[in-house]
Amino acid sequence: MSKALQFELLHKDAGSKARRGRITTPHGVIETPVFMPVGTQATVKAMKPESVNDTGAQIILANTYHLMLRPGSDIVREAGGLHEFMNWHKPILTDCGGFQVFSLGHLRKITEEGAMFSSHIDGSRHMLSPEKSIEVQNDLGSDIIMGFDECAPPDADRDYIAKSQARTTRWLKRCVEAHRNPDTQALFGIMQGGFFKDLREESAAAIVELNLPGYAIGGISVGETKEEYIGVLEYAPDLLPENKPRYVMGIGTPDYILEAVERGVDMFDCVEPTRIARHGMAMTSQGRVSIKNAKYERDFTPLDPECDCYCCRNYSRAYLRHLFKAGETMSHMLLSEHNLRFLSKLSEDIRDSIDKDRFSDFKAEFYAKYYGEREQR
Amino acid sequence: MSKALQFELLHKDAGSKARRGRITTPHGVIETPVFMPVGTQATVKAMKPESVNDTGAQIILANTYHLMLRPGSDIVREAGGLHEFMNWHKPILTDCGGFQVFSLGHLRKITEEGAMFSSHIDGSRHMLSPEKSIEVQNDLGSDIIMGFDECAPPDADRDYIAKSQARTTRWLKRCVEAHRNPDTQALFGIMQGGFFKDLREESAAAIVELNLPGYAIGGISVGETKEEYIGVLEYAPDLLPENKPRYVMGIGTPDYILEAVERGVDMFDCVEPTRIARHGMAMTSQGRVSIKNAKYERDFTPLDPECDCYCCRNYSRAYLRHLFKAGETMSHMLLSEHNLRFLSKLSEDIRDSIDKDRFSDFKAEFYAKYYGEREQR
Repeated sequence: MSKALQFELLHKDAGSKARRGRITTPHGVIETPVFMPVGTQATVKAMKPESVNDTGAQIILANTYHLMLRPGSDIVREAGGLHEFMNWHKPILTDCGGFQVFSLGHLRKITEEGAMFSSHIDGSRHMLSPEKSIEVQNDLGSDIIMGFDECAPPDADRDYIAKSQARTTRWLKRCVEAHRNPDTQALFGIMQGGFFKDLREESAAAIVELNLPGYAIGGISVGETKEEYIGVLEYAPDLLPENKPRYVMGIGTPDYILEAVERGVDMFDCVEPTRIARHGMAMTSQGRVSIKNAKYERDFTPLDPECDCYCCRNYSRAYLRHLFKAGETMSHMLLSEHNLRFLSKLSEDIRDSIDKDRFSDFKAEFYAKYYGEREQR
Repeated sequence: MSKALQFELLHKDAGSKARRGRITTPHGVIETPVFMPVGTQATVKAMKPESVNDTGAQIILANTYHLMLRPGSDIVREAGGLHEFMNWHKPILTDCGGFQVFSLGHLRKITEEGAMFSSHIDGSRHMLSPEKSIEVQNDLGSDIIMGFDECAPPDADRDYIAKSQARTTRWLKRCVEAHRNPDTQALFGIMQGGFFKDLREESAAAIVELNLPGYAIGGISVGETKEEYIGVLEYAPDLLPENKPRYVMGIGTPDYILEAVERGVDMFDCVEPTRIARHGMAMTSQGRVSIKNAKYERDFTPLDPECDCYCCRNYSRAYLRHLFKAGETMSHMLLSEHNLRFLSKLSEDIRDSIDKDRFSDFKAEFYAKYYGEREQR
């Protein structure tokens, strides 16, 4: 039993593997399933923490890779930790930095020791190892920290995936050793193994043995098809302990969230809602809306008539279109807030449907409404 | 007596021409002297209206030129007016569009009819005339609207200035004729005349005769020296009625504000506080601060220890520097809010000092503290 994190499994849906849970951390309680907004550089882009909170966010994610390079985790530590630095006093999860090293870093080289890379900011050379990742996350003081893993490319061959996942497990053991604050920061392990069931089983068995407070399923949101994604989810959650939270990283579209929840996953995060907001895209109860569309020029109705967010309570589509066309920051602010509220409300509705043993019905209804016929599976 | 606007002269400072006043408009009361934040395109850049309000803003300004071109004043009218469109329910002042035609528009040609120009957005040709400017401002529904004027370039010769100010007066008469809502929107006239006292006198005499609810002193914040600026202010306010508000457009640095207040001016506006915020510059009780300066890297104190704004209550210089270096929108949001609070607080302190008959002392103290020796006059 972890002092840093407690998980209660509150209810299991009657018709699927979906589950209602509750995570307790030093900075508060998180009802699951939960979507976690991303604040990469110690800020959820274009939003005050109060606005993030208003969307119903229970926990946010910040990125180890970015904060390690800028401003540097020592500065965040001296500021009193990430909560204090960024003025967000509810739970925070930090990733391990591995994914960004492989997607953003240059000249990277992976060895048993860790990953050498050049900063995408100034080209400086850095080593991110299990010990370094944990040191940075200890400095940041996040409630949930992630073991250092390699997220192998989806086109890697079986031999590479096998060696990579075994190394990730060895890295995780070093993370456990290096972790200075197990009583206040819960370390999660990450399962790898690509699309090979036996490798996933091997990975899961090894990391579960470490008896960590939670686990993530890695490597399934990095360019694979939806079929491959669902394929892994058909069995991977069941390889993890039922009494611990399960997390799929980088998931932020409603369909990917629903498919994961249906198969027993509890936690998700993605930059999707805030990134598409900056491109004028909104998730609404009627599906996606591109606010720059000329048909909204004189549309004085809210972005989403069913939404209760700050944006939908106070502004019209015509105003949002004007802001976007005029290049105004307020457009990013309002659409980001709306999109985060949309995913938070989706999480609330998911939790409610599980409580009522009707998750599968809810999922079908949501698909029909949001995607219509065209993406109905 | 205007139905749209009432002005009470509450108190005159014992040692200067500074005055305390109160303007009442359909959307609320404005204590003067007052600094008005600018929301050019129907949004104060990077700030929610609630945040603008939190800074103590009593009235904001929006730009006729920009809103006429995008989204179009008909759309704002159909939305229910600018207050409704942008969700700001306190007073709004709109300018006449003339200054932007001359500074932003291309291929402009001035005739007795008005100003032909090409849009800076898409090159389309437009005519802005007294009638058109008032039509647009009537559509916008702002509480205070401005007569259409030509702000002649500061290097124009006497002959040009003389003809230009006489034409501006003729334009003002056409504005009065064209104004559809005199009971709900107060039309201000603009005095021109460059740096020629007799032309200023001629302009003032002609526009005062129209008995408008307020007057502005135009053409003194467009590239002149501070000496020229003060030179006009030595006599121009006295040419305007004592019982009506006096407005100097485009003023947003503390020294220009203080010099104008000292000479009997009541209202100011400028993009300065929000524009410099986006460049990482803050106005503080210790003078200007460039937040990107390396010395703030580990400075965990507030941006301005004497400030009560949202930014200073919740964030450190180290965090603000990090946000700015990382290119985060939150940097613009926080510095804009701080800078607007700074000028709002300056206005409050000015009003308080006038109430106590100590404006000149306050001005000297402020100069010493903000500018130190280097800019002390």
